[in-house]
Amino acid sequence: MSEARTPKQDETDRVLGFYGLSDDLVRQVHDALEDERSDEAVDLVEPLHAADTADLLERLPGIQRDALVESLGPALEAETFIHLDDAVREDIVENIDNAVLATVICELESDDAVDFIECLESSDRQEILDAIPEQERVLLEDSLSYPEDSAGRLMRRESANIPSYWTVGQTIDHMRSDVEMPNDFYLLMVVGPTHEPLGVVPLSRLLRSTRPTDISEIMDTDIRRIPATMDQEDVAFLFRQYGLVSAPVVDESGRLVGAIDVDDIVHVIDEEAEEDLLKLGGVREDDFYEAVIGTIRSRFSWLLVNLMTAVFASIVIGFFDAAIEKVVALAILMPIVASMGGNAGTQTLTVAVRALAVKELTATNALRIVGKETLVGGINGVIFAVLIGGIASLWFDDPTIGGIIGLAMIVNLLLAGLAGTVIPLAPDRWGVDPAVGSTVVLTTVTDVVGFLSFLGLAAMVFL
Amino acid sequence: MSEARTPKQDETDRVLGFYGLSDDLVRQVHDALEDERSDEAVDLVEPLHAADTADLLERLPGIQRDALVESLGPALEAETFIHLDDAVREDIVENIDNAVLATVICELESDDAVDFIECLESSDRQEILDAIPEQERVLLEDSLSYPEDSAGRLMRRESANIPSYWTVGQTIDHMRSDVEMPNDFYLLMVVGPTHEPLGVVPLSRLLRSTRPTDISEIMDTDIRRIPATMDQEDVAFLFRQYGLVSAPVVDESGRLVGAIDVDDIVHVIDEEAEEDLLKLGGVREDDFYEAVIGTIRSRFSWLLVNLMTAVFASIVIGFFDAAIEKVVALAILMPIVASMGGNAGTQTLTVAVRALAVKELTATNALRIVGKETLVGGINGVIFAVLIGGIASLWFDDPTIGGIIGLAMIVNLLLAGLAGTVIPLAPDRWGVDPAVGSTVVLTTVTDVVGFLSFLGLAAMVFL
Repeated sequence: MSEARTPKQDETDRVLGFYGLSDDLVRQVHDALEDERSDEAVDLVEPLHAADTADLLERLPGIQRDALVESLGPALEAETFIHLDDAVREDIVENIDNAVLATVICELESDDAVDFIECLESSDRQEILDAIPEQERVLLEDSLSYPEDSAGRLMRRESANIPSYWTVGQTIDHMRSDVEMPNDFYLLMVVGPTHEPLGVVPLSRLLRSTRPTDISEIMDTDIRRIPATMDQEDVAFLFRQYGLVSAPVVDESGRLVGAIDVDDIVHVIDEEAEEDLLKLGGVREDDFYEAVIGTIRSRFSWLLVNLMTAVFASIVIGFFDAAIEKVVALAILMPIVASMGGNAGTQTLTVAVRALAVKELTATNALRIVGKETLVGGINGVIFAVLIGGIASLWFDDPTIGGIIGLAMIVNLLLAGLAGTVIPLAPDRWGVDPAVGSTVVLTTVTDVVGFLSFLGLAAMVFL
Repeated sequence: MSEARTPKQDETDRVLGFYGLSDDLVRQVHDALEDERSDEAVDLVEPLHAADTADLLERLPGIQRDALVESLGPALEAETFIHLDDAVREDIVENIDNAVLATVICELESDDAVDFIECLESSDRQEILDAIPEQERVLLEDSLSYPEDSAGRLMRRESANIPSYWTVGQTIDHMRSDVEMPNDFYLLMVVGPTHEPLGVVPLSRLLRSTRPTDISEIMDTDIRRIPATMDQEDVAFLFRQYGLVSAPVVDESGRLVGAIDVDDIVHVIDEEAEEDLLKLGGVREDDFYEAVIGTIRSRFSWLLVNLMTAVFASIVIGFFDAAIEKVVALAILMPIVASMGGNAGTQTLTVAVRALAVKELTATNALRIVGKETLVGGINGVIFAVLIGGIASLWFDDPTIGGIIGLAMIVNLLLAGLAGTVIPLAPDRWGVDPAVGSTVVLTTVTDVVGFLSFLGLAAMVFL
C-alpha cells in the first residue's frame, strides 16, 4: 500500500495529526544515514514526537541506529528512552556515558525515571544513581525499594496536595503561586493532618465552584487508596473496574506517598495483555526486536519441554505397535483425536485464562464453570464423534473403526473441557501466573489421552 | 484462600477501598435471594459501585439474577448495564420493559448510551429510541450513524468548548455559570469560528495561569484531531503512542463533534487485547457467561475447520501406509515432528500478531522479520534435529531413522518460522484481522509438512 503513496500524502497525514512515522520517513532517514548525510537525518527526526522517534530507532538496523543516536546527541529527547523496546534500549544505552544517562534521568518525571533505572543493568545502576543530585536520588531510591511491578514503582512522587480546610479560592491562589506542583494533573488530593488522603477534587469541579466554597464540601471521599506494595495488575484492575482517572498511593501507615494516573495504567493493561498472549503462545517475552541469538534462546526452553512431552506421547503410541502393525488405519487416523482434543482444550483454556485475568473466574463460580466446560466438551464430543465416526467408517469401509474413533473423540473432548479449566485454576490458586505452561500441560494431556483412548480401544477390539 | 478469611476481614478490605465484591458477599446475596429475603439482598447490594453490582449479577445463577433485578427495581443504577457482560445484559434486558430501558438510557452519558443501544436487538432498538426525548434521540441517532467500533460511536457528545479569543478569567466565569458542561473532564477544547478545534487547554494549566492571560497563549496546539470514522483500534493506538488524555473528534469538514477520553480507551485496549487472545485461541467471542448451548455454538465452527484439516493431514499420512506397515516406528515417531512444528510456528505467530497489533511489524521491516524468524526456526531446527535424531537412533537402535526424523525436523521448523510470520502478514495486507484463522492455517501447514517430510523421506529410504 505505502508504495503507491506520495511523500505529499504522507505529509498531509502528518499535518492532520495522525501517526507521525510513515514508512517513507523511515526510508528517508535510513538512506540519509547510509549516505552519511547525518544533518539531513537529524532535520527529519527532530520534529518527531518522542514516541515516534523511539519507533524509528526500533525500525532502523543496528548500524544506522547507532549513527542516528550519535548524530542527534543532546537533541535526543529524554522521553524517547521511555518509549523504546527493552532490547533496543539496552543496545542504545550501552554506547552512552553513564554521566549523560544521569542527566537524561533527571529530565524525566519520577515514574518514568524509575522505569528507566529499572531496566538498566545492575552494575551501571548504582553508578548512574550516584551521579544524580541527592534530593532526586533519595526519592528514586525510595521508589526503587518497592517490589518490581508494584504501585510504588508505578507512581509519580509529585502530587498536587491541599488540606481539607481550604476554600476553592485559597486553592486556586496556591496553584498559581506554587512552582513545585506537577505539570499536568487531573485531580487534587485532599490530605489530613498526618498526610493521609481524605478525598479528591476533580479540577473541573474546582473550576465550576465559587471561590468561597469549602474544599471539604466539593471533595469526593469515595476514593480507593492504593497501597504502594499492591501489584500493578491489581492496580490496573481497580482503574478499569471503577473508571478511575487518578488514585492516591499510600504507605503502610496510610500516608500519601504518590499518585498513579490512568495514562500509566494504559501501559500496564497493555503489558499484562501482551504477557498473557505471549505466554499462551509459548514465548517467554516479546522478542520482536531481539537479535537472532536472543530469540533462539527465548523460544528454546518451551520447545525443549514440548519435545519431551511429544516423546512421552510417542512412548504411549509405542505400547500399541502390535495393533498398528495389524491395522495401519489406526496410524492414519490417530492424529485426528489428539488434534481435536488439543484445539477444544485450547479454546477452553483461553477463555479461562482471560476470565482469571479479569477476575471473572473466582472460587464462587469455579465449580460451575468447570461443570459447564466439561458439558460443552462432552456435547461437542458427541457431535464430532458422529461426524468423524461416519467419515472413518466410509473411508476404511469398516464401521468398527468408526465406532472406536467416535468413542475416543467423546472421551478426549470431555477431558479437554475439564482440563482446559482445571489446569489454569491450579497455578492461580498457588499464586502462579495461570498462563505460564498451561498450554504445554494441556496439550500433553489431550495428546496422551487422545492416543491412549483411541489406540487402547482399538487394541481391545482388534488384538 | 477466601475460606480462611472472616467477614470482618472482607469488611476491612471494603473500607480500605479495594475491590468491593468479596466471595462472601456474593454468597450472602445468593443465600438471601434463595430464601426469598429480598429486602436483605437489596440492603447488601445498594452500597455497591455499579461495576461491582454488574459483577455480582454476572456471578449469580439465572434465577437469583432475575430475582435481584426485580427486587432492586429503580434502585438498579443505569450505569450497571454498561459494566455487564453482553450475554448477561441480554438476559436481563429481556425482562425489562422498553419504556423503562429508555429512561435508563437517558440517565447515561452519551457515549455509554450509544454503547448500550448498540447491544440491543434491532427489533427493540427503534422502539426504545422512539421513547427517548427528541433532543437526546437526535444526538444518539447521529452517533449511531457512524460505523461500528469507530471513534464516532466511542465519543461523548458533551464537550467543554471555548473560543480562542477568551481570557483565563472569562473561561473560569463561563465554567461557573454554564450548566450545559459535562460533569468531569480534563481538557478544554479551544475552537475557531467554524467550530474547528484549534487546541486544548489542560485544566491544571488554566488554574495555574492568571485571569488576564489569553487562552491562545496557554493552549496546546499540537493536538491529534480524530476523524469520527476512524477505527477504535487506531484511536487506541494514538492514545497509547502519544499518552493522550482526551482528544477532539471531528467530522469530514473538520468541525468538532465530540471528545474521547482516556478512560474509554482503557476499555478499547482491553477489548482489542481480549479479541486477539481469543481469536488466537480459536474462540469467536468471550463466551464465559454464555449458556451451554451458546458456548457450544461459539466453539463449533472452529472445531469443524480443525476436523477438516486434521482429516486432510490423515489423508497425507494415508499415502504412506506401505511404509508404516513395514516400519511401525514411523507411526510412533511421526507426531513428534508435527507437534514441534506446530509449537515453533505458534511462537512465531504470536509474536507477529502482537507486533502487527501495535504497529511494530510494517512494510519496511516485514522482509527482515520474515528472514530472521526463518533463520531462528532453522537454527532451532538443527538443535532439535540433533536431539531427536539421537533419541530416535537409540530408541529403535537404527541411525537411519534418527537421520530421517532429524532432517524432517529441520525442514518443519524452518517452515514454521517462515509460515508463522507470512500467514498473519497476508490477511493484514488485505485489511483482514490477522488473528482470525491464522492458527488453524499455520497448524495445518506444520502438520501436513511434518508428516509429509518425515514419512516421505522414510518412504524413499525404506521402500
